[in-house]
Amino acid sequence: MMEKVAIGVDVGGTSIKMGLFTEGGKLLEKWSLPTNKDNEGKQILPDIAESILGKMKTWNLDKSQVDGVGIGLPGPVDKKGVIHKAVNLYWHNVFNVSETLSGLLGGMKVIAGNDANVAALGEAWVGSGKGHENIVMVTLGTGIGGGIIEDGHIITGSTGAAGEIGHMIVEENEEETCNCGNKGCMEQYGSATGIVRLLERELRANPNEASVMRTRPHTAKDLWDAVIEGDALSKRVAEKFGNYLGTGLASIATVLNPELIIIGGGMSLAGDVLLSYIIKSFESHVFHASRGTKFVRAILGNDGGIYGAARLALQG
Amino acid sequence: MMEKVAIGVDVGGTSIKMGLFTEGGKLLEKWSLPTNKDNEGKQILPDIAESILGKMKTWNLDKSQVDGVGIGLPGPVDKKGVIHKAVNLYWHNVFNVSETLSGLLGGMKVIAGNDANVAALGEAWVGSGKGHENIVMVTLGTGIGGGIIEDGHIITGSTGAAGEIGHMIVEENEEETCNCGNKGCMEQYGSATGIVRLLERELRANPNEASVMRTRPHTAKDLWDAVIEGDALSKRVAEKFGNYLGTGLASIATVLNPELIIIGGGMSLAGDVLLSYIIKSFESHVFHASRGTKFVRAILGNDGGIYGAARLALQG
Repeated sequence: MMEKVAIGVDVGGTSIKMGLFTEGGKLLEKWSLPTNKDNEGKQILPDIAESILGKMKTWNLDKSQVDGVGIGLPGPVDKKGVIHKAVNLYWHNVFNVSETLSGLLGGMKVIAGNDANVAALGEAWVGSGKGHENIVMVTLGTGIGGGIIEDGHIITGSTGAAGEIGHMIVEENEEETCNCGNKGCMEQYGSATGIVRLLERELRANPNEASVMRTRPHTAKDLWDAVIEGDALSKRVAEKFGNYLGTGLASIATVLNPELIIIGGGMSLAGDVLLSYIIKSFESHVFHASRGTKFVRAILGNDGGIYGAARLALQG
Repeated sequence: MMEKVAIGVDVGGTSIKMGLFTEGGKLLEKWSLPTNKDNEGKQILPDIAESILGKMKTWNLDKSQVDGVGIGLPGPVDKKGVIHKAVNLYWHNVFNVSETLSGLLGGMKVIAGNDANVAALGEAWVGSGKGHENIVMVTLGTGIGGGIIEDGHIITGSTGAAGEIGHMIVEENEEETCNCGNKGCMEQYGSATGIVRLLERELRANPNEASVMRTRPHTAKDLWDAVIEGDALSKRVAEKFGNYLGTGLASIATVLNPELIIIGGGMSLAGDVLLSYIIKSFESHVFHASRGTKFVRAILGNDGGIYGAARLALQG
């Protein structure tokens, strides 16, 4: 009837996105469910299983035609599929997600991973990383997420916590505390929230300097617009942002020697101007042997997670 | 007659170390040759091949009994065995080391890697990393070398330059230039040369403070002895050293989530006191999910390279 397929699932705190994909990476259909967090999130995996089995019926697929199910989750997931906690899902006990979901699916193959890592795998598979095997992806949203792809596979780390690029410390002299409890994390400067914090500091530190940002909403979007318009204060904020990200990413590239660094997340929509501030700092900090690392923007947007989850199933 | 064997070769600027190993990691014999750098190092691979073939004759081994030859080289080597340059060997052209040496060995399997990465693989195989799959190794010698092991294999990177931990920038305000051309590299503070530089700065900055180091030779060994004796100025130097290494290694652990960080190289002989300064800073900088990363000292010393090279051959 058709080539084999895989199903990708991306579990977030408010919705569960799902996609049916061909082995070649073509999205056949995507759909979503609300995340049911009642009863400590116990209904989440049964909801997913029911939805998958229903969709297989609609498409007239039996188990032998589905190569597997991949699932990305908001927490560290080790190589065996064990999740340690996922506070956004109200999951507090340690259990094997892959085995549990597989049981609910009558023994179908299930491979689980961390959502940010899985999204990086999606971009590596059919997004802006297509054709490259060694990739670092950074997602600039409310926080900073990350994922490392080596030889086309996710680097998971010993307990599933690899890829936490946003929590590299890039500033020794920070006084405010990051959500993680440390001080000076990249996320405190490079996320959409972080750059607004930098903006507000710059406005306070220079009370007599004119800036279009004195009358506009303090959002990352407005800030990048002001940078493009040439607002001097906003450009200094962009430079600080670029220095923090460029320094941190240069350290990673010096150690991992990737071909490509992919910048994703809502703030990456600010475009090439944002990349240019990162690249300027990156190039002055990276070891010469990794100076060939290229920067590109992600292209899959919110679908990266379902693509990557499907790829994870196909690799597993 | 015996189980299969592999041969490990570690090529340095002055000597070539070689070892014959069982598949299980037992060293049967080690030997070495001087590195002949005449004529742009053209004799190096033929010398190695001749020595291997001679040793196989001595041990009465035919090709079918040798699982392969691994070779570690002082330069970036990509996954295909292509070396880009090795200035210490006077090699300036790009060529495939694995293919060339294999040709000289009548078609035997040869796998090449970077020497620091290969030494990390040796420690992971039968050294202090035995039984662990996700390891970061840092070698504190004249410079700083490094290697990353993920799932028991070397992370090579896109052009063979992964693992250059010593060239992560850990100080934004450095004025002296590192050998690599950048400023503020970990190597400028954490190598045996680097810590002496920190010592001399501290002595100059505090001309009236007594210190046993005012009358002793300025070597890393003497400095660590002074730290153990409780010399206040030397202890401040050790703290600066520990901060630079701990910060940099915390960034790596936040991104790679290793089980183990192995500290090797001549300076690691200073012992647990050296580790304690690194660990103190590491723990205050690493992301909580990777706080379980353990520190240990390397145990294979200069033999790490031949062990790792043999392991590379056995994996290939």
